[in-house]
Amino acid sequence: MGNDLQLYKQLLSLPLFQGLSKGDLEEVVTHTRLGFETYNEGQYIVQENAPCHQLIFILKGDFEVETIAANHSYSITETLHAPELLQPERLWGLMQFYTKSFRCKTSCQILSIEKSEMMKLCDQYLIFRMNLLNLLSTATQRSERRLLRLHSANLEHRIIYFFADRCLRPAGAKTIKIKMTQLASEVNDSRLDVSRALNNLQKKGFINLRRNYIEIKKLEEILQHLAV
Amino acid sequence: MGNDLQLYKQLLSLPLFQGLSKGDLEEVVTHTRLGFETYNEGQYIVQENAPCHQLIFILKGDFEVETIAANHSYSITETLHAPELLQPERLWGLMQFYTKSFRCKTSCQILSIEKSEMMKLCDQYLIFRMNLLNLLSTATQRSERRLLRLHSANLEHRIIYFFADRCLRPAGAKTIKIKMTQLASEVNDSRLDVSRALNNLQKKGFINLRRNYIEIKKLEEILQHLAV
Repeated sequence: MGNDLQLYKQLLSLPLFQGLSKGDLEEVVTHTRLGFETYNEGQYIVQENAPCHQLIFILKGDFEVETIAANHSYSITETLHAPELLQPERLWGLMQFYTKSFRCKTSCQILSIEKSEMMKLCDQYLIFRMNLLNLLSTATQRSERRLLRLHSANLEHRIIYFFADRCLRPAGAKTIKIKMTQLASEVNDSRLDVSRALNNLQKKGFINLRRNYIEIKKLEEILQHLAV
Repeated sequence: MGNDLQLYKQLLSLPLFQGLSKGDLEEVVTHTRLGFETYNEGQYIVQENAPCHQLIFILKGDFEVETIAANHSYSITETLHAPELLQPERLWGLMQFYTKSFRCKTSCQILSIEKSEMMKLCDQYLIFRMNLLNLLSTATQRSERRLLRLHSANLEHRIIYFFADRCLRPAGAKTIKIKMTQLASEVNDSRLDVSRALNNLQKKGFINLRRNYIEIKKLEEILQHLAV
């Protein structure tokens, strides 16, 4: 009983279930095939290119998401925390596979729901349907806004936005593996200028330059600073 | 009767109604409040920033879409043809307003469906629900792919992809109003190099440089050429 209550709370913290009444939630939990699993630290929850047949919710724990560019020319690793939903837009549409890898940093509690069950929920609950349409629409709206936003002439801004645009969340810790020449080519600037800009960002305490990668502790802090 | 048959055909040509049976379509047409209107040449169907309460389908005619960047620093005008659906992702989500302006180039036949009616259709027809989820998911997937794609070191490529990424369709005629200095700042290159690249593209017959704007006749031709 106490467990049920906790589960309800966890489900309600996920954007897809928000707004469902306690009665509805009880019905969902009773009549939907829900897959609960615990993954250990270091274990992959999903790997890049795996087919997406189900929605996976992380209910508890910390995990890493790795985003890899086409041609594997760079990668961005983000640290995220539960509750989170893994690439919901991959369950439908033309490309039904995950494009990112998700790996546990701590032990993680996972809830998975098969596509057929998702369609049933979508059939039965107006609010679930609305949540789903809102979620997918907002994702598209955000990417449109990103494209049309005012670009800065400042190279430090460019570099940070280049990273931020490719992250799942514009906040938290990120590790970017990228060669200086690749980054220079992505932002269309000289290797020397890019190196200077990165060193400036390091001096300001926003990033750490490591041998093979760039470390960001709190992306939200840099974005806030740049917006001023 | 003949009119009905034509309407069914037109609806079936829209991605949202694809796969519905003739019986279902008859029911949709009978039980849904459908708004039919004809707009004249030069008339606006929707203007930027108008609230989005309904889905608007263009059933017949040619029209222009204008996309304006933040700060109105540049604009892109595309010529599109029916059948088309205007920014379906704006009916839900955080930002429920149109971000583009749509204007008739010829007389246009429009079908509009209120959000409440859309939700009813979504409630009643599994296939409609699937079409909607597929449509929105594919839009998100496409923008992710665009972000992570391999960037070219070639400035002509950069410029063309800068335009193409901000278009609704990667094909057809486009007019881009942008100052050379703004374009240079967007692609992070010198005004002189950008001017050279544009002149090269003109020499190859891909674009026309006008006094205040850039004309592209067939974007698909340039993209094909660049991909080689």
